[in-house]
Amino acid sequence: MSTPVYLDYNATAPVRPEACAAIAHALEVGGNPSSIHSAGRAARAIVEQARADVAALIAAPASTVVFTSGGTEANALVIESAVAAGARRLIVSALEHDSIQETSRVMGVPVEVLPVTADGVADFDWLRSRLAAWDAADGKPFVALMLANNETGVIQPVAAAAEIVRAADGWLHVDAIQAAGKIAVDSRALGADTLSVSAHKIGGPQGIGALTFGPRATLSRRQHGGGQERGRRGGTENVPGIAGFGAAAKAALRDLDAFQANAAWRDAAAERLKAAGCAVMGEAAPRLANTLSIAAPGFGSDLQVMALDLAGVMVSAGSACSSGKVKTSPVLAAMGQGDLAGCAIRVSGGWNTSSNDWNRFADAWFEAHERHATRRRAPAAAGVEA
Amino acid sequence: MSTPVYLDYNATAPVRPEACAAIAHALEVGGNPSSIHSAGRAARAIVEQARADVAALIAAPASTVVFTSGGTEANALVIESAVAAGARRLIVSALEHDSIQETSRVMGVPVEVLPVTADGVADFDWLRSRLAAWDAADGKPFVALMLANNETGVIQPVAAAAEIVRAADGWLHVDAIQAAGKIAVDSRALGADTLSVSAHKIGGPQGIGALTFGPRATLSRRQHGGGQERGRRGGTENVPGIAGFGAAAKAALRDLDAFQANAAWRDAAAERLKAAGCAVMGEAAPRLANTLSIAAPGFGSDLQVMALDLAGVMVSAGSACSSGKVKTSPVLAAMGQGDLAGCAIRVSGGWNTSSNDWNRFADAWFEAHERHATRRRAPAAAGVEA
Repeated sequence: MSTPVYLDYNATAPVRPEACAAIAHALEVGGNPSSIHSAGRAARAIVEQARADVAALIAAPASTVVFTSGGTEANALVIESAVAAGARRLIVSALEHDSIQETSRVMGVPVEVLPVTADGVADFDWLRSRLAAWDAADGKPFVALMLANNETGVIQPVAAAAEIVRAADGWLHVDAIQAAGKIAVDSRALGADTLSVSAHKIGGPQGIGALTFGPRATLSRRQHGGGQERGRRGGTENVPGIAGFGAAAKAALRDLDAFQANAAWRDAAAERLKAAGCAVMGEAAPRLANTLSIAAPGFGSDLQVMALDLAGVMVSAGSACSSGKVKTSPVLAAMGQGDLAGCAIRVSGGWNTSSNDWNRFADAWFEAHERHATRRRAPAAAGVEA
Repeated sequence: MSTPVYLDYNATAPVRPEACAAIAHALEVGGNPSSIHSAGRAARAIVEQARADVAALIAAPASTVVFTSGGTEANALVIESAVAAGARRLIVSALEHDSIQETSRVMGVPVEVLPVTADGVADFDWLRSRLAAWDAADGKPFVALMLANNETGVIQPVAAAAEIVRAADGWLHVDAIQAAGKIAVDSRALGADTLSVSAHKIGGPQGIGALTFGPRATLSRRQHGGGQERGRRGGTENVPGIAGFGAAAKAALRDLDAFQANAAWRDAAAERLKAAGCAVMGEAAPRLANTLSIAAPGFGSDLQVMALDLAGVMVSAGSACSSGKVKTSPVLAAMGQGDLAGCAIRVSGGWNTSSNDWNRFADAWFEAHERHATRRRAPAAAGVEA
């Protein structure tokens, strides 16, 4: 079989060589950044350089960047901080990742869902009128709106949302985990009070994420112990992970223009599938260059994913965060596409993807689709064949 | 200058070559363990192999091992779980690490300190009489007692503590972070209801830890999101970190006997320093083979650490978890050695330490001590020299 085609970058991107080298170097240096001897100081220098590189990716001051064990922890830290700071009610968009949905729902305060349009864009009319009727007894409004969706790639007009939230003196949290490294992210220009990122979505290692916070957000402490991260997160720093994150952030920023080439390759593949009756989710909205959420009526998501995998093409049936389970996407359901959700797949390229990868995906898809259609036309024969 | 001597393993051990190789392999494999395609399944296989290897190090069933972002998170998960399960009062030994001390103190329940003797061993008479008088309204007793102390290396008779706690139908948490890989750890034979370990203390990478829990402990969920770790911890698994942890655990278990050689080398160095008036902390108690906590009356901890660092020998002034700060040790204070705490250093070897390293430490210490004594004898001359 020829080299496999990996088109599941939104689940985990392959680790960039720059990140691998930085990790290997950090492992070699060793040392605990809290130690005052030379190995400790060398580890500290690695952490602070990486902090500057991650900060640059999201145009944030390095002093406002806090490393966490990943995007999930960064999002949890924000939500717990908002409630600790007095939020008595949370507004969470229907698009948000499970880490935000589920953390919100265990905080003991009501959670309201910010709805989305059929194109997968947050409904700003709803947000405006909801905030206009906000009860001050519920504390300052907290709104979570991701910058780009992990399943559809749809990019939210976050700066416009920030204006609405700011006018209500609220706290806007922006999950930029899928957006960072794929579009330019300026946390301050977006008006985000907090913004989260994750290394393994941009070609860094798993197990490391970060958060930036602006002057209107008060972070609480979620993990107690040593005085690491200026007292904001106890626990010895994940120096190799942080080093890999920094290197990946630097490379992603450098490659931001080149990354956009994915869009043309993706669209060419999408056109071929559309001719066979497929529908692209969120097609009318601005989307990340690398992401394709596409539904094939009558061809189940799981069947597509498995058939493509057998052909050496790796894609996903949606978010990869449900531990091997193939479930119907709440994001597509929120877009009013619930009927198609069971037959949608997510195809996502990235820093090491070529036009050939997208072509091979489309070729393999047509072969799988043809086989599936044949089986459906002649179930008896297919039974014999199996 | 000759090769530096690293004797600060208890802060962070140098990463073992087996762990570096496993990390590099995992970075190469890529993939998200929650993905159902071949890269995802390969990542899943790495995680489960590492889980088995970590489980073997602590003689626990692999199904009871939960990976966390480090020892601090593992300890926090235990304490939060105990309170969620109904504990209304916590007993925490005076020896515990900051992650346990500080997490306990933000739980909103009273925390009682289990005192220690001058040798640094928990006072079991206190524990027995305290539990005999336990008020059932405080829920089941929760007791945190570490297996080996990070500063002195003193090993606690945890199995005896477990009997006392078990008789009171309590929950014993054992922080085995410094003990694992240095002595044989059998979590079940110890009678631990929960037991925490960390990769970077045994030659694995930073940013990854684990917890094992027995049938009498009920774990709650601290990090919400995807269904990872059988629903016990949301967030994409740190596959390279987990891989490195597994490889380090396997190597540490293999090298357990060889590791004990450190004791003779350490004791030879300690004898030389004792002849110069130094006192070994916890000397009368069973201790880890690699750890030396030694006080030099009149020679400040920070001065010793810095002078040794200049001579290329890296040691610590105590726990490394206070971000560059040199502070007086609460552990030594609890042992009634508060007066000596300000002039104690911690010297800790490990898997890659030789007898020569311990000799060079003692040589460098005598040079530093002599220079210090000279300066004290002739302050004016020293002033000129500086």
